[in-house]
Amino acid sequence: MSTKVAPDPSRRSETARRAILAAAIDLVGEVGYTKLSIEGIAHAAGVGKQTIYRWWSSKGSLLFDAFLTLAGEGEAAALPDTGDLAADLKLVLRATVDELDDPRYDQAMRAMHVEIVNDPILAADYVLRLDRPMRELKKERLRAAQRAGQLAEDVELEVAIDMLFGPILNRWLQRTGPLTHEYVDQVVDTALRGLQPRP
Amino acid sequence: MSTKVAPDPSRRSETARRAILAAAIDLVGEVGYTKLSIEGIAHAAGVGKQTIYRWWSSKGSLLFDAFLTLAGEGEAAALPDTGDLAADLKLVLRATVDELDDPRYDQAMRAMHVEIVNDPILAADYVLRLDRPMRELKKERLRAAQRAGQLAEDVELEVAIDMLFGPILNRWLQRTGPLTHEYVDQVVDTALRGLQPRP
Repeated sequence: MSTKVAPDPSRRSETARRAILAAAIDLVGEVGYTKLSIEGIAHAAGVGKQTIYRWWSSKGSLLFDAFLTLAGEGEAAALPDTGDLAADLKLVLRATVDELDDPRYDQAMRAMHVEIVNDPILAADYVLRLDRPMRELKKERLRAAQRAGQLAEDVELEVAIDMLFGPILNRWLQRTGPLTHEYVDQVVDTALRGLQPRP
Repeated sequence: MSTKVAPDPSRRSETARRAILAAAIDLVGEVGYTKLSIEGIAHAAGVGKQTIYRWWSSKGSLLFDAFLTLAGEGEAAALPDTGDLAADLKLVLRATVDELDDPRYDQAMRAMHVEIVNDPILAADYVLRLDRPMRELKKERLRAAQRAGQLAEDVELEVAIDMLFGPILNRWLQRTGPLTHEYVDQVVDTALRGLQPRP
């Protein structure tokens, strides 16, 4: 009797899907979003165009899935909790800055943000699949800080997250200034301490 | 003798330029950025396509100029100074939210942000022509607040501006939550007071 196992079609599908998503990320980093084409992705992934069109309706939705897979693998972990909120936030945000400075991620993430800005349906998907789960992890860290007396009890956590994580994203997207570790530290310290004079 | 005055060519040029910029803003609001065309803008402005191509190399650069003209006319004024920093910031940011909720501005501003995210040269132009001058006006208001003892002396003003104005822009661009006056007030109060527990 032969020991050869028949190929599992669902496994082959998953392999093709992953090859397509990886090819999309690689290619957008090389040629940019405008020049990205389904043909190019199919060629790089070693599949036919029809395979791609079976799963995705446009390069926008494909790239969006590719990005969510990439971001989900890298970031969907709980935030560090060493007991020092400021230090933990700086660690996470410095890592974000390093990632945004990496050309491999830069083009793919810009492309995703363009899709989000332009398309309310993709934006809703982004909120549901990436923004909300990430926010929950951030909130858990902030709740621990509240229990430890490092964050005011009555702070609106949604606003706290926007204030800590938003400035980095903004500066990167709009290129209004250099994205440095120094800037990260200033944002964290200023957000925690506030703009008002201390008594 | 005739009292008719010969048309002033530079004045005619300026009239055509303004008509083109206004048509670009109107049209992007109607059809969106993807379907916006130079032909459509020329038709709406009552000029030939060649007139547009004489001044702008692409619909991106034209729309960018149109947006800067629109934004410059509306916003390049000093921030109010009633002596109450929190109240003045809330007034300005509530007006921003109302503007972003206006469909006439929404599409045009989204289109400009997409251009900025994608194009480093346009982004540099945006920083120079809009972001920097607006930041200077914001800094003037914050410096007055420092003199009035309402803002800490050692606050980094660039970071303060990112923290006050960034969250509104982010929430609008990424559609992560409703853009309300309540949210504006929470952002201003949280930024001023900080996230740490008060003594």
